[in-house]
Amino acid sequence: MIKVGIIGSTGYAGAELVRILMNHKEAEIVWYGSRSYVDQAYASVYRNMFELVEDKCLDDNIAELAERVDVIFTATPQGYLAGVLTEDILNKVKVVDLSADYRIKDVAIYEKWYGIEHKSPQFIEEAVYGLCEINREDIKGKRLVANPGCYTTCSILTAYPMVEEGMIDANTLIVDAKSGTSGAGRGAKLPNLFCEVNENMKAYGVASHRHTPEIEEQLGYACGEEITINFTPHLVPMNRGILVTEYASLKKKADGTYPTYEEVKAVYDKYYKDETFVRVLPKGECPETKWVEGSNFVDVNFVIDERTGRIIMMGALDNLVKGAAGQAVQNMNLIFGLPENEGLMMVPMFP
Amino acid sequence: MIKVGIIGSTGYAGAELVRILMNHKEAEIVWYGSRSYVDQAYASVYRNMFELVEDKCLDDNIAELAERVDVIFTATPQGYLAGVLTEDILNKVKVVDLSADYRIKDVAIYEKWYGIEHKSPQFIEEAVYGLCEINREDIKGKRLVANPGCYTTCSILTAYPMVEEGMIDANTLIVDAKSGTSGAGRGAKLPNLFCEVNENMKAYGVASHRHTPEIEEQLGYACGEEITINFTPHLVPMNRGILVTEYASLKKKADGTYPTYEEVKAVYDKYYKDETFVRVLPKGECPETKWVEGSNFVDVNFVIDERTGRIIMMGALDNLVKGAAGQAVQNMNLIFGLPENEGLMMVPMFP
Amino acid sequence: MIKVGIIGSTGYAGAELVRILMNHKEAEIVWYGSRSYVDQAYASVYRNMFELVEDKCLDDNIAELAERVDVIFTATPQGYLAGVLTEDILNKVKVVDLSADYRIKDVAIYEKWYGIEHKSPQFIEEAVYGLCEINREDIKGKRLVANPGCYTTCSILTAYPMVEEGMIDANTLIVDAKSGTSGAGRGAKLPNLFCEVNENMKAYGVASHRHTPEIEEQLGYACGEEITINFTPHLVPMNRGILVTEYASLKKKADGTYPTYEEVKAVYDKYYKDETFVRVLPKGECPETKWVEGSNFVDVNFVIDERTGRIIMMGALDNLVKGAAGQAVQNMNLIFGLPENEGLMMVPMFP
Amino acid sequence: MIKVGIIGSTGYAGAELVRILMNHKEAEIVWYGSRSYVDQAYASVYRNMFELVEDKCLDDNIAELAERVDVIFTATPQGYLAGVLTEDILNKVKVVDLSADYRIKDVAIYEKWYGIEHKSPQFIEEAVYGLCEINREDIKGKRLVANPGCYTTCSILTAYPMVEEGMIDANTLIVDAKSGTSGAGRGAKLPNLFCEVNENMKAYGVASHRHTPEIEEQLGYACGEEITINFTPHLVPMNRGILVTEYASLKKKADGTYPTYEEVKAVYDKYYKDETFVRVLPKGECPETKWVEGSNFVDVNFVIDERTGRIIMMGALDNLVKGAAGQAVQNMNLIFGLPENEGLMMVPMFP
Repeated sequence: MIKVGIIGSTGYAGAELVRILMNHKEAEIVWYGSRSYVDQAYASVYRNMFELVEDKCLDDNIAELAERVDVIFTATPQGYLAGVLTEDILNKVKVVDLSADYRIKDVAIYEKWYGIEHKSPQFIEEAVYGLCEINREDIKGKRLVANPGCYTTCSILTAYPMVEEGMIDANTLIVDAKSGTSGAGRGAKLPNLFCEVNENMKAYGVASHRHTPEIEEQLGYACGEEITINFTPHLVPMNRGILVTEYASLKKKADGTYPTYEEVKAVYDKYYKDETFVRVLPKGECPETKWVEGSNFVDVNFVIDERTGRIIMMGALDNLVKGAAGQAVQNMNLIFGLPENEGLMMVPMFP
Repeated sequence: MIKVGIIGSTGYAGAELVRILMNHKEAEIVWYGSRSYVDQAYASVYRNMFELVEDKCLDDNIAELAERVDVIFTATPQGYLAGVLTEDILNKVKVVDLSADYRIKDVAIYEKWYGIEHKSPQFIEEAVYGLCEINREDIKGKRLVANPGCYTTCSILTAYPMVEEGMIDANTLIVDAKSGTSGAGRGAKLPNLFCEVNENMKAYGVASHRHTPEIEEQLGYACGEEITINFTPHLVPMNRGILVTEYASLKKKADGTYPTYEEVKAVYDKYYKDETFVRVLPKGECPETKWVEGSNFVDVNFVIDERTGRIIMMGALDNLVKGAAGQAVQNMNLIFGLPENEGLMMVPMFP
Repeated sequence: MIKVGIIGSTGYAGAELVRILMNHKEAEIVWYGSRSYVDQAYASVYRNMFELVEDKCLDDNIAELAERVDVIFTATPQGYLAGVLTEDILNKVKVVDLSADYRIKDVAIYEKWYGIEHKSPQFIEEAVYGLCEINREDIKGKRLVANPGCYTTCSILTAYPMVEEGMIDANTLIVDAKSGTSGAGRGAKLPNLFCEVNENMKAYGVASHRHTPEIEEQLGYACGEEITINFTPHLVPMNRGILVTEYASLKKKADGTYPTYEEVKAVYDKYYKDETFVRVLPKGECPETKWVEGSNFVDVNFVIDERTGRIIMMGALDNLVKGAAGQAVQNMNLIFGLPENEGLMMVPMFP
Repeated sequence: MIKVGIIGSTGYAGAELVRILMNHKEAEIVWYGSRSYVDQAYASVYRNMFELVEDKCLDDNIAELAERVDVIFTATPQGYLAGVLTEDILNKVKVVDLSADYRIKDVAIYEKWYGIEHKSPQFIEEAVYGLCEINREDIKGKRLVANPGCYTTCSILTAYPMVEEGMIDANTLIVDAKSGTSGAGRGAKLPNLFCEVNENMKAYGVASHRHTPEIEEQLGYACGEEITINFTPHLVPMNRGILVTEYASLKKKADGTYPTYEEVKAVYDKYYKDETFVRVLPKGECPETKWVEGSNFVDVNFVIDERTGRIIMMGALDNLVKGAAGQAVQNMNLIFGLPENEGLMMVPMFP
């Protein structure tokens, strides 16, 4: 049985880790870290866990934690893990970091977009970017996994086959993303109040959201060159779910025509047919966030627009599952050599 | 492996049966009955089931179905099962009926409140009312279980200990109930449109809702006399969840005082302490529907108001789980002698 | 033109005062008080007012304000106005207080339920309770009006004719109230976050909510005796709207029968037929919060349940309009002798 | 007083016409046409109008209607007006058509995208496209105005200054649009049920939505050439509101640099500074649908992304007001020479 510690267990992503791991056969949570609720019963912070979790919240002493557990999940603000991680800790435990600290290989880009100094850049090289469907083999056995962001996972997986196969001009990529409000966290801030979000919709972080360079870096690896894209997140009045709508110019084939639906579908199937958690929908079906709610699935599909020469790609996932806690558990499974889907076969809940 | 057939598998309750049974170790669905979608892929009706359910919808030929399965769930309109049920069918399969056809023992009351003739009253006597926490022993091995209504389950379990112990005057009971919209079913009706429900709230069926006699009958058994109560359902702009707020006059003790919190709490604990699915919340905590969403739990609690001599009892459940499909599976487990919680330990999803 | 000052103009009730008064022909706002946003453009706090309100927020110096305006609306926390009100101020301006400071005549009851000392009880006697439909004549020309609470307005108006006419036993009254989330204010508190409220419902303040004594006092005046009632508020995932469902035992007539629908309807019509803002719905129609949204209307109706001898009364209003700012403007109109409905004929917005 | 007839008065757009016209000083509705509800009280179909509208619904006999009124609003399905409009009618009344029948000048394009034959193409030439801010002068005094679509109004006004001034390459324009559910109408269809829409989001009509050619035609006029664009609508769980996020490649200036914020802002101001209903937000503020709810405003803004050489333009409006009924009334005002904003100064409702 793998012993699990969570730092930041009372945020929404941390709480989702708890929900998922409770039905994981090979793991048990032994440390519910939460700086804000030390000594309070976890179930008093998340009453849904009443009679399910008996533990109290503990502080986030990562050094002590490293002695007690086999794997640490850090669902913490940017900069936290980079500020406390040491070689000694990594020698003792595996770390799956749900923050952005080790996602971006170029520390200058990290520091520019996040506006903070990176306190332990020496681990960036070692950290593997935990987008399981793409970096599966690299993740196995690793000490440090940088769990991708919620927007990023959805944005990358939706476009990846087209970029990797060179079927689109990656620099024309525009990602218009829509997210449920749990992505904004559980902090008590005015813009996240019910009356401010309900019956409302807005873009935010336009041309400046921190997930942009993460998408650019990963898709840049896929096409073998540096790219710049547009990424625009939006806040939607729903709890969970990310939907991305992506636009890119299709490259014409040698005969001067655009690839057909069947040709593009074959490309998607090449990458995702054997993937448990990526579902390429039937022709004509647009992904809906509700079809994946509560599950680790990503649903993707596309439409070719010959009028404009563009492809419209769409993807949907649950930001707290495949966009955070679910993928983190998937990474844990890979690290420890467990079946990759262990604990993750939650059936999407509808309605 | 228990072979399961569902008649009405494309309603919300039927779909929830599918979701739950997919993670049930001892049961498999072999018949997805749906009169409206015969020959269509089940996953085309509920796209969340894409790549999870490969079956097509079948008709609702219950006689043929009885040959093929061990248990039939009927998630059908009132009157359907009563119109087709036969001794022959009951000799072959177990039936868990999610409709109201066999819930009420007095056929005259059924016919009055439902406004339809009961076509097979001969099975009413045999049918056991499947409120598991109360009729557990009676359910085991039975052929025909009448699965309680969603409002009813919540209303009864919330007040049951007080009624059974004679601590309240049952005829003063007022049940003010609030339900998410999935309780209204998946029929395409104007009052259930998003724009009619969202940002709106209303009572309906005031003094005439069909769950009223069901509550009265069951609580009448508990207190040993016929009772009349008020039950008022309300429609709330949320998908899932029932919340009941119940009011009743407390009986004074021999010394002329009202029972204390501790005394009432002891009564609730007597009934529910060992129940997996009923959680009596800590003092001062009011049940919230979100704390039980997606799970088979019922959360209950109470407040004593000495000023008015009343007790306010509250209960919350997920109308599609403990209020329908979850309890139906719980009944199936009891019928077949399986662990009662098999397949039902879904952790409530928050947020 | 009446010069208006608002203290607390950046709360939801204050902002609603601004929205309403912008279309009022005889009043203009000259002071947008907001301790939290002093010197910031009002339209930067409420972006809906962009290009509509040019003013900056001012502090809440009530003494200076009294020199500048004809009427002050205080949309402030409990205790604020009681702490600063003076005879000198009242000699200069009219005050409509949206807080609870002067609603309850018995200062001991105020101090007990609100848990704070009343700093200027000398004005309680003079203050008139501004429930316009009931105290219309008393309000005209007054210096100090205590604007009723949102729950209270709805609860009282719904039951008032029955209580005043002695047709129900007022001590059996149970008020089960449901409110949209704007009633909780614009404070950045965790329980009011979108993800905590959305897809959720709960009771709160059970047997202890502060609007209880206000309802008891006013209905007590109506029936001529002190009464105790049960009042239970609930939080609903919608922005605006209060719905109350009220239960009470009907008194039998001299002949031993209960009053008929027509008899009760005649009573309601006696009180409300000529009221612009109270609409007694047609038989069988249950009030819906959406039918009054954005307007100053209160919709009421009732159902007689002969089985239990109770009447179920229902009422709906918009908590920010008739439950706060709209009624405050109605009071202003009465004070200054304007047409009572001036500026208040907003048509309910649907959907 | 202008006499108004509405055909299709019981759809959401028709009902919004009623709401708006009730506060219009120069117009009164004398014909509430509704094929579905003939002879029923209008207020029984929209209970918010109880005691406000006494009329019954009438049939949609347009010939008779033309005798009785000065202006007819047709809030009807595509093809209706084209099927009944005659020269005789246009000689008697003004017609403002909220459907698409006369929006597109090229009848072949209309018939291709809408899939129906146009029954009276002879009026297309005469019909003026009623986007008031752009075609103001052409609308005055006209007999037939084609009121623009909701998506279209928002999409065009958001990009118009940039297209008209040639600052972007119009063929790179991508419009990602998000709409509240009232845009889908009041038809009782499964996809519009509360439980299907709530907590959900999806794209639809990808690369095939009928508003595409309308946007292309109008923006094509602006830039003086035929253009093709991408337009993708999405369904959002809210009642009202459209938000568009538009992407286009900026043209470089002669010196090889991109225009600055100030230069672009000056262009927007050139077009909208004197417009009552178009608000160009302050730098850095992203439009939110809630800031315009219930009002006739369109809020727009933009961000320049020098990294990609694109401009991101955003716009928000209330689909039932500026996107339908409000603009229709604005057109009526222009036709009859009334102040353009008469009846339209509704203050946005927040929250």
